[in-house]
Amino acid sequence: MSSDPCSFCSFTRCVTKHLNLNLHLDFDRRVIRGKVALTVEALEDRFSALTLDTRDLKIVSVSANGQPACFNLGPKHSFKGTPLDISLPFDISRGQHVIMEVTYETSPSASALQWLTPEQTAGKKHPYLFSQCQAHHCRSMVPCQDSPSIKHTYYAQVNVPKDLVAVMSAMRDGQEVDPQDNNRIIYKFRQPVPMPSYLIAIVVGALESREIGPRSRVWSEKEFVDKAAFEFSETETMLKTAEDLAGPYVWGQYDILVLPPSFPYGGMENPCLTFATPTLLAGDKSLSNVIAHEISHSWTGNLVTNKTWEHFWLNEGHTVYLERMISRCMESEQFRQFKAMGGWKDLQDSVNTFGANNPLTNLVPSLQDVDPDDAFSSVPYEKGFALLYHLEELMGGPEVFMGFVKSYIQLFAYSSVTTEEWKNYLFTYFKDKVDVLNKVDWNAWMFTPGMPPVKPQYDSTLADACITLSQKWIKAKEQDLSSFKESDVKMLSSHQLTEFLSLLLQENPLPLTHVKKMQEVYDLNARTNSEIRFRWLRLCVRSRWEESVPLALKMATEQGRMKFTRPLFREVVNFEKYRDQAVQLFLAHRAGMHPVTAGLIAKDLKVNTSDGTSQ
Amino acid sequence: MSSDPCSFCSFTRCVTKHLNLNLHLDFDRRVIRGKVALTVEALEDRFSALTLDTRDLKIVSVSANGQPACFNLGPKHSFKGTPLDISLPFDISRGQHVIMEVTYETSPSASALQWLTPEQTAGKKHPYLFSQCQAHHCRSMVPCQDSPSIKHTYYAQVNVPKDLVAVMSAMRDGQEVDPQDNNRIIYKFRQPVPMPSYLIAIVVGALESREIGPRSRVWSEKEFVDKAAFEFSETETMLKTAEDLAGPYVWGQYDILVLPPSFPYGGMENPCLTFATPTLLAGDKSLSNVIAHEISHSWTGNLVTNKTWEHFWLNEGHTVYLERMISRCMESEQFRQFKAMGGWKDLQDSVNTFGANNPLTNLVPSLQDVDPDDAFSSVPYEKGFALLYHLEELMGGPEVFMGFVKSYIQLFAYSSVTTEEWKNYLFTYFKDKVDVLNKVDWNAWMFTPGMPPVKPQYDSTLADACITLSQKWIKAKEQDLSSFKESDVKMLSSHQLTEFLSLLLQENPLPLTHVKKMQEVYDLNARTNSEIRFRWLRLCVRSRWEESVPLALKMATEQGRMKFTRPLFREVVNFEKYRDQAVQLFLAHRAGMHPVTAGLIAKDLKVNTSDGTSQ
Ligand SMILES: [Zn+2]
Ligand SMILES: [Zn+2]
Repeated sequence: MSSDPCSFCSFTRCVTKHLNLNLHLDFDRRVIRGKVALTVEALEDRFSALTLDTRDLKIVSVSANGQPACFNLGPKHSFKGTPLDISLPFDISRGQHVIMEVTYETSPSASALQWLTPEQTAGKKHPYLFSQCQAHHCRSMVPCQDSPSIKHTYYAQVNVPKDLVAVMSAMRDGQEVDPQDNNRIIYKFRQPVPMPSYLIAIVVGALESREIGPRSRVWSEKEFVDKAAFEFSETETMLKTAEDLAGPYVWGQYDILVLPPSFPYGGMENPCLTFATPTLLAGDKSLSNVIAHEISHSWTGNLVTNKTWEHFWLNEGHTVYLERMISRCMESEQFRQFKAMGGWKDLQDSVNTFGANNPLTNLVPSLQDVDPDDAFSSVPYEKGFALLYHLEELMGGPEVFMGFVKSYIQLFAYSSVTTEEWKNYLFTYFKDKVDVLNKVDWNAWMFTPGMPPVKPQYDSTLADACITLSQKWIKAKEQDLSSFKESDVKMLSSHQLTEFLSLLLQENPLPLTHVKKMQEVYDLNARTNSEIRFRWLRLCVRSRWEESVPLALKMATEQGRMKFTRPLFREVVNFEKYRDQAVQLFLAHRAGMHPVTAGLIAKDLKVNTSDGTSQ
Repeated sequence: MSSDPCSFCSFTRCVTKHLNLNLHLDFDRRVIRGKVALTVEALEDRFSALTLDTRDLKIVSVSANGQPACFNLGPKHSFKGTPLDISLPFDISRGQHVIMEVTYETSPSASALQWLTPEQTAGKKHPYLFSQCQAHHCRSMVPCQDSPSIKHTYYAQVNVPKDLVAVMSAMRDGQEVDPQDNNRIIYKFRQPVPMPSYLIAIVVGALESREIGPRSRVWSEKEFVDKAAFEFSETETMLKTAEDLAGPYVWGQYDILVLPPSFPYGGMENPCLTFATPTLLAGDKSLSNVIAHEISHSWTGNLVTNKTWEHFWLNEGHTVYLERMISRCMESEQFRQFKAMGGWKDLQDSVNTFGANNPLTNLVPSLQDVDPDDAFSSVPYEKGFALLYHLEELMGGPEVFMGFVKSYIQLFAYSSVTTEEWKNYLFTYFKDKVDVLNKVDWNAWMFTPGMPPVKPQYDSTLADACITLSQKWIKAKEQDLSSFKESDVKMLSSHQLTEFLSLLLQENPLPLTHVKKMQEVYDLNARTNSEIRFRWLRLCVRSRWEESVPLALKMATEQGRMKFTRPLFREVVNFEKYRDQAVQLFLAHRAGMHPVTAGLIAKDLKVNTSDGTSQ
């Protein structure tokens, strides 16, 4: 395979080995003025032209080894951005290096970035910037070979106003006052481990930090540092557990940064600095599996990387598998089984949302002409996990299969991998069980939409109480409602409460009487745990409890984690009476939302992206 | 530690990431005209000057990113060569790359290289060139940061006369006719795994090759290809065994090249292309442990590298340990024990040669003002192995200790390591046995000359027959000699015969009558196995059997493996009557000898290096 469907770059003609970044943040204009020096290695002889990915970048100049180079921006693509074609003023041969320097400026609407006003922050005094590059947004921040097939080290100097602190997905390498402007500081960062462009990340804001372990700090605005330090106190234990499972942690530091509420994902595995949504701050560490997930990415994803986004399941399926192995080690096997069951439900949810025939529900989808943001779902995570768990069952259990996973990580460390390479190694590692592997319906698992061909048998011990209770509600007639009491949920963990609600969401909506009774006896409105609240409000809206609509819209807009915000908006939009209100609310908030979130909700709501008219 | 005592370079001011080599071999003048582009990363801000190691190089020009750079060759050191100080025409900052290009020419007396006349080859028709860079000779072939603390990838184009074939320590990357001279060919090589400069290697000659495994070929002049293919047929088995022990083999190809007889070492672990002495071609695979040793270096040495030559035991001790683990797997534990006993004897030999108080017999010697070639001995190999074996005994046996070795390799892969870092990890890995580790006399093992403080208990099962027989000879009076018969040695393997002779060499010389009897009954003169012949001839010379002197001198000069040649010369020189003959023979051969071998023998024989007068 010589091309990445999500990038304009070739990874067979040249490869970037190092980026040297100089970024100057202009909060007034909401642009980054940047200069990047890419150390590029030619893979072909008579190499004299290369293409970099850009998106909405203004290119000021390009040079090669200090000599001016001609460049041309090609046509702008609907989602891949704009190719930057560069002609070198000389030829180089295969194996030779050239230093390409590009000076440029980002657009205020750069898709990788969200610029926040002080009002949008916790402290209300300073602006804030954060990036989210996965999958194909780095090119809106830095011109580069924006493909996960290419790994490079990086060094960065970030120039910001002196009241602000900058952090990146790298080791912190000191800071100094800007020699040209003593109202600004230059923060320096060094990433000596080769990594793909989507893992470049930056946050600038009124940040503080606190140490939580021998190689870990939490970062956030000061309002949340202590809460985050408490919530993520298990980090070192998780890191050690992961190292025992997967091998050495090569990245040095493992910090966590809690972003403002509009951060689109639960977490992002930026090396040295996991990004986390503040919706994890439940107060009781109950949502720490997201941290276990991001920690696991330090191996599966960051050390061994999917070669293109069509192989994204390699990143996410293995990471969910490792995440749940950490749960097994830190809690119990029963808890892992419980989480696996929950994951199967999330998979069903995604398949229902996309449609069981939608090829985007393939484990290995084609992404020709597909915007990776549109393709994003639980499928690579949970169909990926289900496949690995199924193989675990076939190969002889968790210890046996972890032997393979650990070995796979070691073999492919520092490189980018395809499904075929993974599968070939599976067959090599388990050469004594090839007959068993050959009975797996690989075509169905990999290349067929919908639910997997096999459903693993999960241990329902921890789920039984949830199943029993949800069934009781589902079967209850109005006269049965008085049998429900607060004590029904007293012994349920927050995980089990979440699962109880997930089970109910799979069924037809409950009658309104039931939902009102549930609130009366369980007071779920008081539960601030975001996973619980998210499911509870969906349940209420589906049951047409009108008082829940403003609560759902409030949750949808007060935070921007797409896992919550998109379904909440969709849920309200399906309540015909409130459809317009939801759309208007979205339009009112849109400008202040994260660009990717805003774009996807616009599609969900069938709102035209530029003029707000319905499509 | 910020400096390497054997190099003029700093490894804290900048590091080389990649070398792009263009080498033009001129066999008439015996020089290489070279151009090297070094991609250098600054580690300091305002970086504007760097020093490269050179030795006897003529520097033609230097540029930085295509701009001319001023340079100056400093004073020539007795063994470290000449520092090449370069001023950049601009500053760069920490994390920034610059491409330094140096055009240069090697000296005909480059210490890394031996240029052979056709007469010195097997085929007699074509000249031949080979390199041996370890420890500090790469700088006589390429200007570079010639320190094992620095690892870089490389790409090379090698331009040679069209009748010749070039190979390097890299993946072969094709060839083409020289567009400027169709009597020449350009061979291309790609080494994508970062490695230190001492592992750069080149051979040019009338080479042929034959496949011996899925990732292995043997190379040599055609006269030896089939013999080599037979001798090294176990290569793939050894590679698989090593992979099971140590982790994935990351180098791609594993080829073996059999050099002409003057190659100074038993083997050299050049990545992708082990160099081997033709004295391994015993005809019965009995000397294949050298290949197991070089294969093991693919992990310990090439993947995890000593940070400076003071920590050479990390390379060699671990490699001998792995080599003997391969023997355990492929033969038996008894055979490993047998080899370990033999190694202890080699250690005693080195300690005797250097002197028990000589600090060069420290496991971790100081190499300030010490030529690494002078320091070279069995000490890092066998004192290193003895330490690791001792720790294996303390920690709970070979499986337990291999767990540490495998983990150490994985942790430090792609980096350079000091003894302290190794020791810290030992204590981390065996944290539950720290009390046992604390009882080890680390100061005696590491920093005290002479034999180790503890002698491990080895299983003598396979050695018993050798011990019994040698004792019989040692205790025999003249009237007992008739009791010796050919059948004494009939059941001994060549390994055991070698050990039998080693045991005799440890004792006082046998009377001449005994040695003559030994020849009569055992016909050891007929044994062509080089390890046997080497010991046998030393025994004979020591016992003053005058007819053996020309045989010893013949072996010393027909091949140039220093393990054999140096002791054979020393042995004859100690036979006062033949001293002058030995010295004259050396002087006569010197010009055609390998430069490092010639230099060391001159020191052994106390012959002045330039005018042949005795010192
Ligand atoms: Zn993930
Ligand atoms: Zn060695």
